[in-house]
Amino acid sequence: MSDNEKAVSMAVVRRLPRYYRFLSELLSENVVRISSRELAQRMGVTASQIRQDLNCFGGFGQQGYGYNVAVLLEEISRILYVKDSAPTILIGVGNMGRAVLTHLPFELRGFSIIGAFDKSQSIVGSRVGSHTVAHVDTLHDFCLRNKPLVAVLCIPKEAAVTLSAQLIEDGVRAFWNFSHYDIALNHPGVVVQNVHLGDSLMTLSYLLHHPENSGSAERE
Amino acid sequence: MSDNEKAVSMAVVRRLPRYYRFLSELLSENVVRISSRELAQRMGVTASQIRQDLNCFGGFGQQGYGYNVAVLLEEISRILYVKDSAPTILIGVGNMGRAVLTHLPFELRGFSIIGAFDKSQSIVGSRVGSHTVAHVDTLHDFCLRNKPLVAVLCIPKEAAVTLSAQLIEDGVRAFWNFSHYDIALNHPGVVVQNVHLGDSLMTLSYLLHHPENSGSAERE
Repeated sequence: MSDNEKAVSMAVVRRLPRYYRFLSELLSENVVRISSRELAQRMGVTASQIRQDLNCFGGFGQQGYGYNVAVLLEEISRILYVKDSAPTILIGVGNMGRAVLTHLPFELRGFSIIGAFDKSQSIVGSRVGSHTVAHVDTLHDFCLRNKPLVAVLCIPKEAAVTLSAQLIEDGVRAFWNFSHYDIALNHPGVVVQNVHLGDSLMTLSYLLHHPENSGSAERE
Repeated sequence: MSDNEKAVSMAVVRRLPRYYRFLSELLSENVVRISSRELAQRMGVTASQIRQDLNCFGGFGQQGYGYNVAVLLEEISRILYVKDSAPTILIGVGNMGRAVLTHLPFELRGFSIIGAFDKSQSIVGSRVGSHTVAHVDTLHDFCLRNKPLVAVLCIPKEAAVTLSAQLIEDGVRAFWNFSHYDIALNHPGVVVQNVHLGDSLMTLSYLLHHPENSGSAERE
């Protein structure tokens, strides 16, 4: 971590992937430079928000010249470690696990999937993407040999309770958690990013009935 | 919308599904009453945050007696309209669409899935859960006849651009959006809740390398 990153708040960090997406798009459209005003318009935020966010990292804009798209994208990639290959396993290759495994470009986001596990005999041994699903009983040995740092949990809450404890003991330090088990609450030392699709759906339900709130929701 | 809901900020609304989950769990454990202190401990937040959040809705606690779990859950259900059945369609029955359709209890979150659509001949006609996938070419007629209010988009960005415009014209008012197309930016009038799994994954990448930030991330 460089000195100028120290003060970055999580609110800013959470916005960086969105900058990353929009800048990737600009780059693919061969846009070389963009002003904070144009970028703001495109992203539906204010120019001052953009300047403020990017200033956290020392700013990369030059007054009157805007941002160099490739340089800024490169810098955000560095901050988010998207070129890293953190050894990652996925547990639970049901519908959600299968979708996550095939849908998301882990290797372009800083992760490298090195194993997929399930307990169902009908799934174990099958191929999903470039992976052969192994039995979850082999997980402990796999961890000792391959030392995964990250686990994606696409399993029910009850299974997540025991498995996360075992994985932490076996060296896993971060979880991408699709289960409803609150890992961080019980293991304060590990890194957890929760994906609660049900919560998102319930927020949509609220917004459907309170459309006047919709704009503010979208930008967070 | 009742009078005492008017001042509810989106930050509070976004936390309500989490209250809903924890209270559902308490109810299933036959807990009748809980103090804000106990609930706070269980949820990993402060008691004052809980009192503040629930006060937005007129509060439901009684000084010294805590909250009645069933009553509070009922009230949050009402605020989030989880007992509603908003007519909903899902478009794109690939891996992600299939996972969403089979994984999530829409009917317990305020929605009723009335149709699933895809453009691939290998998927059209197949059964997913209790739905037979129809061709996306029949979507316009379907909308005229069945008037869906909500669409779940599990399609690539390019397809989302044209389809969302068509759906809005056909009366759809809210989107649960898994695509990377920013619907709200181009159609300010509609309600959108985005699910950007890639953004979540990139945030995890940051946290893996800055574990000291992890606690603050989890509670948001």
